[in-house]
Amino acid sequence: LELPSTLIKVVEQFSKLQGIGEKTALRHVLSVTKWNTGDVHAFANALDSLANLKKCEDCGMFADDVFCEVCKSSDRENTKTLCVVESITDCLAIERSGQFGGLYHILGGTLNPLIGIGPEELGVHKILQRVKDKGIGEVILALNPSVEGDATCSYLREVLPEQIVVDRIGFGIPIGGSLEFLDSMTISKALENRRIM
Amino acid sequence: LELPSTLIKVVEQFSKLQGIGEKTALRHVLSVTKWNTGDVHAFANALDSLANLKKCEDCGMFADDVFCEVCKSSDRENTKTLCVVESITDCLAIERSGQFGGLYHILGGTLNPLIGIGPEELGVHKILQRVKDKGIGEVILALNPSVEGDATCSYLREVLPEQIVVDRIGFGIPIGGSLEFLDSMTISKALENRRIM
Repeated sequence: LELPSTLIKVVEQFSKLQGIGEKTALRHVLSVTKWNTGDVHAFANALDSLANLKKCEDCGMFADDVFCEVCKSSDRENTKTLCVVESITDCLAIERSGQFGGLYHILGGTLNPLIGIGPEELGVHKILQRVKDKGIGEVILALNPSVEGDATCSYLREVLPEQIVVDRIGFGIPIGGSLEFLDSMTISKALENRRIM
Repeated sequence: LELPSTLIKVVEQFSKLQGIGEKTALRHVLSVTKWNTGDVHAFANALDSLANLKKCEDCGMFADDVFCEVCKSSDRENTKTLCVVESITDCLAIERSGQFGGLYHILGGTLNPLIGIGPEELGVHKILQRVKDKGIGEVILALNPSVEGDATCSYLREVLPEQIVVDRIGFGIPIGGSLEFLDSMTISKALENRRIM
């Protein structure tokens, strides 16, 4: 039985989502066909609004207004610390940990001259401006360990004023991890980052 | 970190789908935020079109036009047999088996006078009309085993012309099933439906 093209188009769209195969997509689509017209429109409109999602002018996080919740908030613990991350999802992961009460800057990538991503594209001038304007004393570089991540960190340390403390988040064995199954890069990083007990 | 309401709305919509919790919904939404504007619009439009999905005037299946692929098709094996099912998903399940080459009628439910679903709502008059117009010789009732399903089958047998063969699909042990774990209703149906080897 050939499904009508209307349905097939929606199935194709759902299949583009990670972890959703054609079978699951069809199941979702068939369940939506049972919704009433208003509910389907609401879903479609909400989805469509993602195309025009605003980003915070200060940090680059998703925002309803000009500024995001973090930048607008008056009850962040520590507004003198700036955490630099690669992506919005990395920022959400840190917020979920509940261990950071400062401000963020989302780079949206890492330095990669080969594909034309330089300091301008990552908004490095904005970091420097904010550090100056807001009297930031410490910058935490929460970039992922990779060649590009490392290069971006070195670059940022270089351009940030010398009196600013610049840290990079710690690398080592993840909680619940086991030495037996970890790659040797992680193990050597963990040895390097050992601490006196 | 409070996510902007735009995002939360989409997460809520995705969470309405079966098997998608808030976490998975957020993952899907975040992946969509990385799509380009055109792709997001395409997804939203495809989804929106589900609100106006047409149904075949003959059988009630989803259709692009006035009639569905099955009713339009000229190479169905057997156009003298009509299979009556409760829902479109039941029809798709039978088509997937590849064992039926006839026509369908989708009731859209079962007789349930308590909530006001009578023969009119299920389009029983359409079945009778089609049986007459198309010279249908056999009607297969592929309704699920339930009190309402049974009652609907009895009603249909009564209103269909006497010379028409009316069968109900067989009940018994599903392939791969094991007697040990099956309910006694299924086992008694299976005993009833025993066949000489």
